Amino acid sequence: MTETINQTPTRTRTNDARLRQRARAVIPGGMYGHMSANALPPEYPQFYQRSEGSHVWDVDGNEYVDFMCSFGPIILGHKHPKVEAAAAAQRADGDTQAGPAAAMVDAAELLVDRVAHADWAMFGKNGTDATTTCLTIARAATGRAKVLAAAGAYHGSAPWCTIRMDGVTPDDRANLAYYTFNDIASVHRALEEAGGEAAAIIVSPFRHDAGFDEELVDPRFARELRALCDRTGTALVLDEVRAGFRLNDGGSWEPLGVAPDLSAWSKAIGNGYPIAAILGSAAFSDAASRIFVTGSFWFQAVPMAAAVATITAIREEDAVAAMQRTGTMLCDGIERQAAEGGVRISLTGPPAMPNLRFPDDADLAKGKTFCGTVAEHGVIIHPRHNWFLSAAHSDRDIERALEATSAGFQAVRARFGED
Amino acid sequence: MTETINQTPTRTRTNDARLRQRARAVIPGGMYGHMSANALPPEYPQFYQRSEGSHVWDVDGNEYVDFMCSFGPIILGHKHPKVEAAAAAQRADGDTQAGPAAAMVDAAELLVDRVAHADWAMFGKNGTDATTTCLTIARAATGRAKVLAAAGAYHGSAPWCTIRMDGVTPDDRANLAYYTFNDIASVHRALEEAGGEAAAIIVSPFRHDAGFDEELVDPRFARELRALCDRTGTALVLDEVRAGFRLNDGGSWEPLGVAPDLSAWSKAIGNGYPIAAILGSAAFSDAASRIFVTGSFWFQAVPMAAAVATITAIREEDAVAAMQRTGTMLCDGIERQAAEGGVRISLTGPPAMPNLRFPDDADLAKGKTFCGTVAEHGVIIHPRHNWFLSAAHSDRDIERALEATSAGFQAVRARFGED
Repeated sequence: MTETINQTPTRTRTNDARLRQRARAVIPGGMYGHMSANALPPEYPQFYQRSEGSHVWDVDGNEYVDFMCSFGPIILGHKHPKVEAAAAAQRADGDTQAGPAAAMVDAAELLVDRVAHADWAMFGKNGTDATTTCLTIARAATGRAKVLAAAGAYHGSAPWCTIRMDGVTPDDRANLAYYTFNDIASVHRALEEAGGEAAAIIVSPFRHDAGFDEELVDPRFARELRALCDRTGTALVLDEVRAGFRLNDGGSWEPLGVAPDLSAWSKAIGNGYPIAAILGSAAFSDAASRIFVTGSFWFQAVPMAAAVATITAIREEDAVAAMQRTGTMLCDGIERQAAEGGVRISLTGPPAMPNLRFPDDADLAKGKTFCGTVAEHGVIIHPRHNWFLSAAHSDRDIERALEATSAGFQAVRARFGED
Repeated sequence: MTETINQTPTRTRTNDARLRQRARAVIPGGMYGHMSANALPPEYPQFYQRSEGSHVWDVDGNEYVDFMCSFGPIILGHKHPKVEAAAAAQRADGDTQAGPAAAMVDAAELLVDRVAHADWAMFGKNGTDATTTCLTIARAATGRAKVLAAAGAYHGSAPWCTIRMDGVTPDDRANLAYYTFNDIASVHRALEEAGGEAAAIIVSPFRHDAGFDEELVDPRFARELRALCDRTGTALVLDEVRAGFRLNDGGSWEPLGVAPDLSAWSKAIGNGYPIAAILGSAAFSDAASRIFVTGSFWFQAVPMAAAVATITAIREEDAVAAMQRTGTMLCDGIERQAAEGGVRISLTGPPAMPNLRFPDDADLAKGKTFCGTVAEHGVIIHPRHNWFLSAAHSDRDIERALEATSAGFQAVRARFGED
């Protein structure tokens, strides 16, 4: 697919190919969901063997600097010593037990301490658990049914929010109405159409829809959302699942002075251990105690202990500033390479979660050429989805990444010419 | 609440009380979901410290023989050496990585090998993920919307299936229709009302609705369900989340010769590690590959490795027969004690998952007196939910349980008199 460049190192992929073949026999489509490599360039592995800090190894032993961080969960780097020690200590006692462990209370207290708007916490497993539970609580609190969401935003993969309509019924979406991110007039219109029946407005801290430029929130939009919710008795739900703790050591909108009523968290809060959290203000505590949500593994103790260690280390190690610094190095370097190479790019979003798009690249031909070459040079990024920095990324990792992206731009120019 | 019996050992609960107080400040209602001790007798701890084999310790150091097995997940006993070794080996490599590990293919192959109807597998985290995904696949395959479920059956805690209606909208249930378990005429009626629009019939291997007597499936009912589904092009979905691998080393209806099209699994398949599985026949593979379901932790490698070790050990250790044997000892002993003590009980269900109810005990006064006393004597059972045996339960555990239930019957008789 991509043109061969002289310097391209050759990486074997025989184990990966064999596993893909076995997978095709027992997994529909060979793989599913956001980690399927089916739509990725052939230079990407599907299966991974090992992970340490900011580095990962595929099943053929090829090493990569990884800027996907498992699509977000890895915020301190794989196998962070303090997180692993906390998890191991809890595991030596018990994990999925007859009931919760003390670590659940510790985790709830720490989240309530760290996130300004939160007076209480509940835990689940999936980001989708967290967003869905927020809406259920908002509906229980308001006695209303309708929810306003930004068109194109991703809030999970349950029938009410998944990105494909296969198997989804119109009833699953009957109470959804849509506005445009950063366009307060569109929220007014949607609220008006909801006719006093809006239970919640759900919004991401910034626009990070896969396949599109990222867009930071206009502080006025955030403040007006809050005012509108107050005026209409609608719950403001902040979906922190993807962004949480990468932009701020606390809620992502705290620097704007805008407090949601409910917020949904997952991914980074346990540095890879499976956990989600629902945080809320005191006014929503009664509704939260009335709904029934649960899961066989929702009270698992190891992820709670890992979350306490992760959230503690994020502050102790100033992880947000570290990601901001290395992310800025990476983005500045890529911008410079693109300008020098005469390739037009659109690099958007916060430095800790950047998104790269090539303009006029609807079929992702440029994006895939670029990312495939970068992968072949030992760096994992993504042609459609935002990337993630972790606090484990070093200056040397950024240098290696920029060597790989330099080769990526050469490959794009070789195949598509200068813009 | 319960009358004091002379022999009742005194167990301190000061750490538990302190944790409950802290929890009330940061968790709505102090706890939520199926592991909340709010509705349990005061002799139950809310928080647990440690678990080994069939024994658990609360945060005050009180030891219990545990017959809830974390509400199902623990099928081989806590910290089963082979499961822990497999999990540790995978953890040393990587867990939540940039993509799935080879263990995902191993787990899919093993499930397809063990469960007769399965040609493929997908994985999630929650039992609710598995049941919901089965219905989404059935809808994608059939192009129909409606789902028939047994009235009162528990299939998870998403808005379409949760047991409380707080925060649930009528639209969440718009496509649900209900039949009566074991009553094929009621299925006929529900199918007729669905008017050719039934995508799926979802059913549990046996009736295990909390608060009711359990009811084994009438083999004719199972066979007629299959025939009806064949005749109407409806998918038969077996919800194995709670029963899976406790009744049979494979699908629970295999001994009846009835194969579902899709089945939902979770709980026991990873012996406490968080994993769910969706299994299906080849005819549903295309639809399964079209839907979009995923989660940040759905490709986590450690639970996949744990599942392989668990499912392997279930066969190697003849776990199903072991649970059948100790469960029968326990149930026979309880029946004998009740008869000798002149207390009427209703002990129902398969020996590996028994359910105890006192007739004419709508407020659970007898059940709570019984179970509270049993807990005070160091044995965890449940007044409303079925219990779970594991392969780690020993003859000595059953003896200890029967000493505790003997005290429980004494307490019931002391408070309520002979029946």
